[in-house]
Amino acid sequence: MIDAEILQRLSATLVERKSAPPESSYVAKLYSKGTDAICKKVAEEAAETIMAAKDGDLRHIVYEVSDLWFHSMILLAQFGLSTDDVLAELRRREGISGIDEKAARVEK
Amino acid sequence: MIDAEILQRLSATLVERKSAPPESSYVAKLYSKGTDAICKKVAEEAAETIMAAKDGDLRHIVYEVSDLWFHSMILLAQFGLSTDDVLAELRRREGISGIDEKAARVEK
Amino acid sequence: MIDAEILQRLSATLVERKSAPPESSYVAKLYSKGTDAICKKVAEEAAETIMAAKDGDLRHIVYEVSDLWFHSMILLAQFGLSTDDVLAELRRREGISGIDEKAARVEK
Amino acid sequence: MIDAEILQRLSATLVERKSAPPESSYVAKLYSKGTDAICKKVAEEAAETIMAAKDGDLRHIVYEVSDLWFHSMILLAQFGLSTDDVLAELRRREGISGIDEKAARVEK
Repeated sequence: MIDAEILQRLSATLVERKSAPPESSYVAKLYSKGTDAICKKVAEEAAETIMAAKDGDLRHIVYEVSDLWFHSMILLAQFGLSTDDVLAELRRREGISGIDEKAARVEK
Repeated sequence: MIDAEILQRLSATLVERKSAPPESSYVAKLYSKGTDAICKKVAEEAAETIMAAKDGDLRHIVYEVSDLWFHSMILLAQFGLSTDDVLAELRRREGISGIDEKAARVEK
Repeated sequence: MIDAEILQRLSATLVERKSAPPESSYVAKLYSKGTDAICKKVAEEAAETIMAAKDGDLRHIVYEVSDLWFHSMILLAQFGLSTDDVLAELRRREGISGIDEKAARVEK
Repeated sequence: MIDAEILQRLSATLVERKSAPPESSYVAKLYSKGTDAICKKVAEEAAETIMAAKDGDLRHIVYEVSDLWFHSMILLAQFGLSTDDVLAELRRREGISGIDEKAARVEK
């Protein structure tokens, strides 16, 4: 069983970096550039995920999805949100009607 | 503390849906359409995440990041991968050198 | 020599559709859904262009770039802009310092 | 009337850059990085187009759509294609059944 608390630890670290000087880390620098820069990274990582999938390269897919999740966690932190909010939303969907709650809404 | 095992449960459910008939659920139908259709959804949800961020709408951001993670989990399952692989990769980065491992690579 | 005025004709048609009833055409319906729906299509077509490129399928690449341009023209029209504005911008870059004007700015 | 031949001139220049040394220009360098790098730029520019649209900033929209078209022209050139192929495809759609040819296919 993988330690799922990595998401909470990572979220906490990302919040800390918000008050760090831009030059202190990649994440601090990205925050200093603002929401558009973070959004651009989310788009980039989504594109790289797609390209890894098209290549059928398993290691690369894991790597790019990790980058995609990592940058979406930075975006969450930018707005004072965290992975707990996302996990709660995913659990809410499970609680109500299973993952097909999504289907009903998306395909209408 | 939010129940982080939601990701494992959701991953398990997504694997089950791979062998279900396409008409049985949104997820089963998406699998039946193949990798390109799943990739297209990942791109769409990334775009919707960006638009929610531009609107500064917190509920919507959580909702769209959840959709983005959900569809990237379907992509992982499509390739026999799971969130455990992503959590392990995020933990590996933490283990080696903190989340700035990313920085060294990305900014070179 | 291909008739380049297709862009102007298409732009003019797209403007006409803005005042047409939503049910009259695909484009009129897309306008009625608003800017977010158009943006989502631009993101989708960009993703499909990338997937076609990864497949190395020449016909498909042309098809998806055409879709990408078509939907970005709808976005332009949504804001009272047209391909003439884009062509003028591309010409301005050429006029000033060639296409490397882009380079100086992007790589800084 | 804007000089629509800018697309043909730009296409021709982009083809020339394919055989130029990587360090000679932004475009030559991008070619040297390969298809994935070009695709990543297409995705980035699509994201920036969306963000400009969300800001409702007209100058910025024109600027980003120009970047999007410019980088999709580089992608075309990478595969030995050109804007003439895209203009021919757009014209074909117009010729057959108007821009709603798209609708019939997309919404099915």
